[in-house]
This record gives sequence, C-alpha cells and structure tokens, in this order.
Amino acid sequence: MVISMKLHSSREEIEQVCKRIEHFGYKVHSIEGEERVVIGVVGRGDVTNCLESVEAMPQVESAVRISAPYKFVSREFRRAKTQIRLNGAEIGGDEFVVMAGPCSVESEEQIMNAAEAVARAGAKMLRGGAFKPRTSPYDFQGLEEEGLKLLAKARSATGLGIVTEVMSDSDVDLVAEYADVLQVGARNMQNFALLKALGPCQRPILLKRGLSSTVKELLMSAEYIVAHGNPNVILCERGIRTYETATRNTCDLTAVAVLDELTHLPVMVDPSHATGKRSLVPALSRAAVAIGCDGLIVEVHPCPEQAMSDGAQSLNPKQFTAMMKELEPYLRLWKDSRVTEAAAAV
Amino acid sequence: MVISMKLHSSREEIEQVCKRIEHFGYKVHSIEGEERVVIGVVGRGDVTNCLESVEAMPQVESAVRISAPYKFVSREFRRAKTQIRLNGAEIGGDEFVVMAGPCSVESEEQIMNAAEAVARAGAKMLRGGAFKPRTSPYDFQGLEEEGLKLLAKARSATGLGIVTEVMSDSDVDLVAEYADVLQVGARNMQNFALLKALGPCQRPILLKRGLSSTVKELLMSAEYIVAHGNPNVILCERGIRTYETATRNTCDLTAVAVLDELTHLPVMVDPSHATGKRSLVPALSRAAVAIGCDGLIVEVHPCPEQAMSDGAQSLNPKQFTAMMKELEPYLRLWKDSRVTEAAAAV
Amino acid sequence: MVISMKLHSSREEIEQVCKRIEHFGYKVHSIEGEERVVIGVVGRGDVTNCLESVEAMPQVESAVRISAPYKFVSREFRRAKTQIRLNGAEIGGDEFVVMAGPCSVESEEQIMNAAEAVARAGAKMLRGGAFKPRTSPYDFQGLEEEGLKLLAKARSATGLGIVTEVMSDSDVDLVAEYADVLQVGARNMQNFALLKALGPCQRPILLKRGLSSTVKELLMSAEYIVAHGNPNVILCERGIRTYETATRNTCDLTAVAVLDELTHLPVMVDPSHATGKRSLVPALSRAAVAIGCDGLIVEVHPCPEQAMSDGAQSLNPKQFTAMMKELEPYLRLWKDSRVTEAAAAV
Amino acid sequence: MVISMKLHSSREEIEQVCKRIEHFGYKVHSIEGEERVVIGVVGRGDVTNCLESVEAMPQVESAVRISAPYKFVSREFRRAKTQIRLNGAEIGGDEFVVMAGPCSVESEEQIMNAAEAVARAGAKMLRGGAFKPRTSPYDFQGLEEEGLKLLAKARSATGLGIVTEVMSDSDVDLVAEYADVLQVGARNMQNFALLKALGPCQRPILLKRGLSSTVKELLMSAEYIVAHGNPNVILCERGIRTYETATRNTCDLTAVAVLDELTHLPVMVDPSHATGKRSLVPALSRAAVAIGCDGLIVEVHPCPEQAMSDGAQSLNPKQFTAMMKELEPYLRLWKDSRVTEAAAAV
Repeated sequence: MVISMKLHSSREEIEQVCKRIEHFGYKVHSIEGEERVVIGVVGRGDVTNCLESVEAMPQVESAVRISAPYKFVSREFRRAKTQIRLNGAEIGGDEFVVMAGPCSVESEEQIMNAAEAVARAGAKMLRGGAFKPRTSPYDFQGLEEEGLKLLAKARSATGLGIVTEVMSDSDVDLVAEYADVLQVGARNMQNFALLKALGPCQRPILLKRGLSSTVKELLMSAEYIVAHGNPNVILCERGIRTYETATRNTCDLTAVAVLDELTHLPVMVDPSHATGKRSLVPALSRAAVAIGCDGLIVEVHPCPEQAMSDGAQSLNPKQFTAMMKELEPYLRLWKDSRVTEAAAAV
Repeated sequence: MVISMKLHSSREEIEQVCKRIEHFGYKVHSIEGEERVVIGVVGRGDVTNCLESVEAMPQVESAVRISAPYKFVSREFRRAKTQIRLNGAEIGGDEFVVMAGPCSVESEEQIMNAAEAVARAGAKMLRGGAFKPRTSPYDFQGLEEEGLKLLAKARSATGLGIVTEVMSDSDVDLVAEYADVLQVGARNMQNFALLKALGPCQRPILLKRGLSSTVKELLMSAEYIVAHGNPNVILCERGIRTYETATRNTCDLTAVAVLDELTHLPVMVDPSHATGKRSLVPALSRAAVAIGCDGLIVEVHPCPEQAMSDGAQSLNPKQFTAMMKELEPYLRLWKDSRVTEAAAAV
Repeated sequence: MVISMKLHSSREEIEQVCKRIEHFGYKVHSIEGEERVVIGVVGRGDVTNCLESVEAMPQVESAVRISAPYKFVSREFRRAKTQIRLNGAEIGGDEFVVMAGPCSVESEEQIMNAAEAVARAGAKMLRGGAFKPRTSPYDFQGLEEEGLKLLAKARSATGLGIVTEVMSDSDVDLVAEYADVLQVGARNMQNFALLKALGPCQRPILLKRGLSSTVKELLMSAEYIVAHGNPNVILCERGIRTYETATRNTCDLTAVAVLDELTHLPVMVDPSHATGKRSLVPALSRAAVAIGCDGLIVEVHPCPEQAMSDGAQSLNPKQFTAMMKELEPYLRLWKDSRVTEAAAAV
Repeated sequence: MVISMKLHSSREEIEQVCKRIEHFGYKVHSIEGEERVVIGVVGRGDVTNCLESVEAMPQVESAVRISAPYKFVSREFRRAKTQIRLNGAEIGGDEFVVMAGPCSVESEEQIMNAAEAVARAGAKMLRGGAFKPRTSPYDFQGLEEEGLKLLAKARSATGLGIVTEVMSDSDVDLVAEYADVLQVGARNMQNFALLKALGPCQRPILLKRGLSSTVKELLMSAEYIVAHGNPNVILCERGIRTYETATRNTCDLTAVAVLDELTHLPVMVDPSHATGKRSLVPALSRAAVAIGCDGLIVEVHPCPEQAMSDGAQSLNPKQFTAMMKELEPYLRLWKDSRVTEAAAAV
C-alpha cells in the first residue's frame, strides 16, 4: 500500500494516519517529498479494511494497493499451469479443448443432432443451456431439469462431456448431478452466493468474465471458488461491453495473454458471444488459438434459423466442421509451442 | 420490427424471410428502395424469437426492434406514477424519501448510533447490509441473520424502516422476515433466479442498476419482478462503469429524466456509490434532487474511518446532518414542482 | 512516483532501477516488504520520461505517478477561482453565464432570429458554428468566414458576445477576429497543434471535454493552452461516450464537482450534446445549476425541425424561454451559495 | 430510414412527418401496426439532414438510418480489396507488411540503429514520430522538421519506406515532402480539417482508429480522405478505451474481421499501443496475423529503457527479431489463405 497525503498536511495528521495503519498490523515508512508526504506500507494485515479506513481519513489524498488482491489463483502462488481433466483431455496442458453446442437445449431431437454433429467435428464437450439467463421475462427460460436429462442422454449417446450453466446457489446440487462442468455465466460472475456454493462442488467450473468486469475482478471471482474449496476453475473471455455496436460485445482477446501472466488457471474464449455474429466466429477463433488460449466454446445449432435463442451467432454443423478443419494448422502451431514451453520448463 | 435485407437479395430470398416472419404471427410490408429491400413487420407475436430467428438468416443485413421490450413497467402501460408506501411516506408521490445508514451492519453499537443519527437528520429508512457482496472472498462478508436482527432492533428503537440487500433466491424469505424493503444490488441486477423469487415476495424492492446495464436492461429486470407478481419496484441509479477513474463510478444522472419518460416506477439515486468519495456526495445529492428523482440512499457511518467497508464514501453524522439542511431549499423547489405536476395531471 | 519491483528481484536489479531514477534527478527510498520491494521517489525531475523509462525495465512490476501531471490549472497552484470577463459578466464569479444559439449558422435570418430570442430570454452569449466538425463529409460543413460575419452582425444587433468553434491552428487568427470566445470541440480536445496555437490568442477559450477523455486529460489540455500563454480557459462537460444508447452521450455531471476540487478554472455544462434529446435538456440544466457549474451552453434554434444539424437536441425559443424561467429559483440558490463561499473565503 | 411515430399519433401528425420526408426527396411507406405507425423511407436524398430534421419533430419516437453512411470506402461500392504500393510491396494483397521503429525520432544514432535493426528483421517500413501528440505540454514534443530529415537519412541508408505522423493541416505539405506514408494518429481521427487537407496529398495515409471511435466512424473518417481525392487509405486498429486498466487500451481485434466485411481498404494492427506492454506484443501480433489483417506497425527502440516516449511498450531489436521469427509459420498460413481467396475470386 502507498498512501499519499494531501499537500500541507501537518505532522500530527501524518502521525494519525501512520498510527491507524500500524493498528492494522503494518509497518510504515514515511517519505518526505518536496511537495507532499508519501507513506509506504509493508507487512501483512487486513489489506482491504486498512485501505478503506485510511482512504476515509480527511487528510489522505489517495491510497493505492500494490500487491495483487488474489492469492491462490496467481502465478506467483503456483508457477505450473493448472490442468483439469475433462472427458479424457487435460485442459491447461498440451491438448486444445473445444466445447460446442446450442445456446439452449430445446428438444431431444435438437440436442441429439447437435451432439452428434459437434462430436463428429472434433469437440470434446457438449454445451447447452437448461437454465437460461434471459434479459426478458417473456423469452424462453430453458427446459430446466428436463434439459439436464436430455444433456445426459446426449452424453450417453456420443461420449461427449457436458458443460451447462447454473444460475443460483440453490441449483448447484441439481446441475452437478448431470453436468461434467458447471458454467457460471457473465451476468453471474459476481453472484457471490453462487460462487461460494461452488466451492464444495466436485465438478470443474467454467467461469465467464462479466460484461463490465476487469481481469482482476475475474480473478477475484475465481479466487472465491478456489478459496471455498474447488481448485478446478477454467476462465473464459467472452467479450466485454463497450460503446462499439458493430459486434454484440468487444472481445478483449489480449486478456488471454494478460491472464497467462497473472494466473495458472486455464483460459478459454467464447467467440460466439464475443461477436454475436456467425460470420465473425471463424476469424476470431483462429486468433484465439494463435494468442494461446486453452480452448474454445462455440455455439452450434442444427438449424440456427429455428433456434430459440442466439441464432444469429450460432454456426450450423457444416460451418462448424469447416471451421474445425480450417483451425487444424493453427492448432498444430499451438501444440508445437505448448510442447516447447513444457520442455523449457523442465 | 424492421428487417433490412442485404444488397442484391433475390426475390426468393426476400420471400423466404417474409415467410419466416409470418410464421411467428406477424404481417409484413416489404419496401423496395433503390439499393435494398426493407421489410416492415407489424402485429403481435413472439418478438424476441422472431427477431433472433430472422437475424440468423444469411441474407438479412440487420433486424431492429422498434417497440419497447417491456410492458408492465412502461409509461405507455400506466400513465400515473406508482406510489409505494414506505414507513408512512409515499415514494413516487410528493414526498422525497431519504434512506441512510452504513454500508454494513457491524455491531449493535454501530447500527444503533447510525440509526439514531440518520433519524434525527430526517431519514425515513435505515440502510445497512447484513449480506455483503464483496469483490474479495477475504473481505468482511456481513453478519448475515445476526445483522438482520440488529436492523430490526434499530427499527424498534427509532421507528425507521429497514432496507437491506438480498443476494440469493434462497435468502429471500429470511430477509423479507426482517426488512421493509429488499434491495437487489448492482451485481445482481441480472441474477434472474433472484428476480423471479422476488415476485411472490410481499415487500417493495429497491432495484439497483448494474454497473454496465443500460436503462432498458434495468427496466427489463424490473419487468421480471413485476411480471412475477410484485408491482412495488423502486429503481436506483448508482453510477455505471466507464473509463473515468476520478470517481468510483460515473453517475448517469440524466437516466433519472430518461426513466421518468419511460416508466411509472419511482427512481432513487445513490450518490455514495456513484462517486465513491465523501466530499462529492452533497453536490451530487443537490443535483439529484434538482433533476427530479424520488429519493436518495446515502451511506452514513458513525465513524467512517473505522468502517469495515466503504469508509471513503460514507458521511459521518455531522456531515449528513449538514447535507440534509443544505438540501432543504432544493427540496422545497422539488415539492413545488410535484404539486404543480399533480395539479396539471388532474 | 512509486515503483513496485517484481517478486524475487535481486539486489542488483533493484539497484539498477534506483540508479536510473537518480539519473533523472530524483531521490529514492526503497522499502522492503515481506513479498516485494517498493521504491518511493521524491524530488523534482522529468517525471514522464523517468516514469516511462523505469516502466520499460524488465524487473519493474509497475510505476505509478502520485503528483498531478498538471500545474498551472490546479487548485494547489492557485486557490482563488479564475474569473473571466465575458461581455460584461464574470464567469467563475457570482454570475451564472448562459450561452445559447443554434448548432450552425445557416443564414442571416436564422442567426438573427436566434440571437434576438436568446438575448430576450437572458443569455449573455450567442453560440453558433461557422466551421462545423461533421462525422460525414457529405453533411453541411458550415458557412465558414461568411458565418463568422453573420455572427458579428448578430452581435451588433443584440449586444450578445459570440462563442464559436475553431477547428484548426491555421484558422485561429481568422476566428479570433470575429469571436469573443473560441471554442475547442470535443473531437479536438487533444488536437495539440490547435491547443498550442491558442496560447498566443487574446480571446478566452471554451474547451470541451473529449468523448473519451478523463477529467485529468481535460485538465492537461487546458494546461497546454495556459502553458502556451493564455490563462483564460473555460472547461465544458458535454457528456462522454459509454455503452448507454438512450442518450447521445452520458453526462458526467459529477465531473463538475470533481473539477471544482482540482482546478480554479470555470466549468460549464452543455446539456444539449450531453443528452441529444430536447425533452431532457431542462431537467439536466436544473441539475447542472444545482451541482454548481459556472454556466450553461444550450442549443436553441428558431425552428429546430428545419435545422441543418442537431435539430433533435435544440430547443425552440419558446422552450428556451420557459426553461430560463424555470431555472430562476435554482439560480437564486446558486447565487446564495456563491456569495456565502466568497464571504467564507475572506 | 425508418421512422417510428409515438403511440397515439394523429393522422395529421403522421402526414406532417411524411410531408417533411418527401420534402427531402424521398418516398414514404407508412405501415400501421397495432400499437404504432412506422414509416419506411426509400429513395435518394440528403440523408443526414432529413434524419435530423425528422428526429426533431415532436411526434417522432425515433428515426433510424438503415443504409451505411459511407460510400466510396464500402465493400458494396468496390468488391476487390484496395492494394497500395508501399516501398515495393502491395499492402492489401498477398504480402504482409510490417512497419516498425521507435515512437519518436530522438537522434541520428537512435533512428539509424533502429532502422538497421528493423530492416534486418524483415520490416518494410520505418515508423518514427517527428511531430508528437503528447498528453502533457511538458513532455518531449518531437524534433519536427529535423526529425523528418533524420527519417529521410535512415531511408537512404536502409531502403526502408518512411511512415510518420502529421498533426495539423498546416503541416501536410512539409511532412509529405519527407514521408512515404502519412499517419493520422488516434487523437486526430476526427480532426476534419486535417482529413480534408489529406485529400489532395499524393501519399498513402495510415488512419488510426480513435480511442472512442466506432468502426463506422473510422470508415467515415476514411471516407473524408477518399471523398477529397486520396483513395489510398490504410486503416489501423490500435485499441479502444474501456474500463479495463490491465492494458493501456483494449484491442478490438474482431474489428479487423468486421472491417473486412464492410470495406475494401487494407487494415493494420498496432499491438504496441493496443497493449502498452512489451511482453504482450508478440502474442497479440500472432493473433492479428491469424485474424487476417494486412500488416503490423510495431514499436521498436534500440534501447527501450532510454526511450523518450513509450519505452514500456517498445521491443528491443533482439525481441523484435525473435518475434518476426516466431511469426513466420503464421505468415505462411496467412499467405496460403490469401492465395486461396484470390483464386476463389477469379
């Protein structure tokens, strides 16, 4: 922490601030500049409270945190990447994992067709929403448990793993019964009751970045899950909200590289929500592979024009198969670089 | 709905699109421009699905919704402002309602002191968090039920009503047992499981705008609660997230005037979260009164420097009392304009 | 400046960083935390270069500036508010200044009608664009010098002062010949060639905040003008760009209060560009007066439906007159608070 | 254009709106929905004025433009990609063009070293600022004409082409005398006086996207240059401003794919400004190649720690060489896809 005093603070005022900081268990080093006094704070203590308390003092100009607010998820805590076993593959290692499927589970026929198509094209996991977060109460809200059962059926038929969204702490047990990976949607990234309830859950979690969440906040939400007992968190960049309206969201693809520096957790990209437009999905997917993410989650629908949600951003099976084929040479380069890194790390 | 076809669409392609639209129960009017064909859509049908389905068709350039996506909360549905009885006052009418209190309930002494101070200064309702949404899992998470009990005690002692946050659908009943108004925090504005659970609840709801939510999305979230059975929703502008860092958030104060055109629901302003800085709270509060909101919710702590959260933006009792005094002439102008409006409406 | 070293930096690396900082004329205080070393930097030197140079060093985690990057425009440099004489009034003192008029000068009849109407309603200055920054090359670009001449004619007829935009350093002399105040538009806030050319100019400058500029950047742009010789700069909040689309821009009204803490320069608000919608202008104007800005600049057109630009946000003369009347009691409160402040300052 | 009337508009009001639209040379088709009337507008006329005029009418709810506001730069106007000859290469064709060099020209030694290093590593063009747009008036402002001369010297020595920024319409001739490509910086993207002055200029223009500019606005700014006579415009995505602070800007990499649909102009990416952090540049560059941009512009400094600007985001020659090597297999895939596309187009 570094505290900057207001100009012309008196000796007493500075001492008052130092005393309060020490009260939280820290040591202070006050530095007298020509214009103002800056107080360096070191040691271990209750950072957030200390920061807020000091910021509230009238003679304090600003109080800035230096150390990262997360711990278990940071690269400094754990150098080696976390690898999470997903249906036989290890995400975070040298296998690139593709999850694909429709936005919503709509019917047995639809999910079966989708599952077979994405399995054939090389996906490892089937996505599909049974509980749907919809902006309007009048939109299709999902088939709920019935949808979960259909997903399980599709797993039996195809061997794909299942990833599906959970929207409330009260549904965690139910969803975990059917799904292999539980997804936390962008709108629930800071649903802290839900995050806490995922701690005791035995399934890996796919945590999507909130529409207006910083990379640090995404890591803090992951830290919630890990601190409550579940170390298997996969992060997902799915676009953030900006003033640009040509795409549904603005994909912060650089965040993949930023996260690779800050955390050991695997990072996926969702090119479908990031763009909102089918024609842009293959190009963004190539870029996502090239920047080094660990996997993709892509919306695929047997017939996008008849989709009950997100039709405009869904690929049909033929388009998805073509995209997977087009990604192949990029995935070979991706694999080479993973193997090189792994060798260098030894 | 208005559908714009891609340039050089063939007659067949246009007909295909028209057919799909009609399939959703609408009538179409296709207009041939010199460059492209535009299709006007009228009637009643399943708007969202139709829109998404059509957007997904390859020859469609864009599909734009014209009518508002919400119904019960709109001014067109109900002209007269909704008035909600809060501890003897009617928010939404010609009484300006101030809610005040600490960010978190921390102890009996703290909440009692806070309650007495804000009651003395003229607040009608006591705010105070028992369940706290905190970015970090290591920060103080609230006293939970114990906190609710302390709030109830403060109500008995001071006669203030209680407004406090509920963070999960599984806590709605518990919180409703103690609180007069249930608050949905900014991070939960699109926690749809929670919104649905508030429908059957008998208490008024204070719904805060999400950090990156548009005014329309705020209204859609209110529509969720109303459509599920609870018409008593109070909206709250509390600042949105932008690139500006001089304040904690950017208060979109104009949204108060926008909402007054779009909805009959009462609208409050939270100048504490909107600024994040105590010294800016009185100025923004004056402006909020002048623009015509229905009430304020302000953070006040007996001793902000010792607050366990949000100290920097909390007023102490003396500052709050001074602000309430300073607001008086503005509140008189506010009241005059409400009385004038009411007379004009007769 | 405060430099935070990466974890596990060696003694040599820390010394290298310290040496480089000292090379820029500063003194260093290194503080050893339990986890990392933080270096406090004090003294006077070439801040920006030092900061950038140090940030570029591989073992540096982050480098943060503590002191404000502007000087002449800061409240710390000059306590008393700058007052600028505008057509007999003093903006920045205890007179509230209203500037009004059409977006563009379109014809003699139009500008004369506009001028008479706004003068009658109480405006002190006439706004009107002769050089127009238009997003499209196919839109009306302004009457240029012809427009300036019409503005001068309107001044002669009404006694109003003239404020008009200058878009290029090569036009500064020409515009200054006709105008009383030169406006720098939002899109030119960081047109540094223009800002420098305004230094030698004898006219006050109205500097509008850029669409995506922070308050600090606005002050830096003002600093450019002041540092190049012209102390008479008036700042203007006119809305920033966010994801919200219900209004043309998002008015950061709190910035008025923030600027009042940071600078002695007068601050105006432009409710027309901030909202983009005529019906919202009066409400936002009331709020702007209440928060304490020094003046308003409002778009008024004799016949908004026939305006060549910005018709949707222009008031007609009757609406403007009504708004000015409605503002009166708010302006009395404004004046009271200015007189009180002035008395307190003695 | 599509005009949506307010609910309950009278027949007279609708006719008034139709009349005004026809006055601008359009034909109208009014469509009566169950709730409101929507007016479709077709034909050719003065779109912007018509739109603004109609929006200003009191009974109009909204007026939306359907057709794109740009013409010459659109893919619909010209299918084949514009290819621009740059120092022997054709950007926009099947050659990937790398521009590299320091942020600022600082001295002969510096620019010569930089030029030789980037030429050796495979760059085609040397970047380097002689006129520098700096946020602070106290920062290094560039060597101006002296800098241009040094760039010319570096060209003679290495055979590289020169790209450098022009900040004012009054400097266009001077800069064009020395440079092969004139750069318009992000802060000047809507400096319309400058854009117009670039029309008669014989040099290609590198137009950077503004910090808060939409893709459409970028195209409108390009349209200015093309409409004023210069068809050789290269667009550049360099990151936009969002709330995220982990990177200097947020690279909207998807915009490359969006632009490829909307325009025939070549598109480059600037990974240095987009990230602000050297360590992120190689990863983002790989992604930029994979998504299909036409070239990169990268900051390279012989000794970033001594750079007078942008040191933290500059690569040193060794890092740049390594990155160019690492890009090779991605560039081979890039080239394959260009050749395939070209073949498909025949």
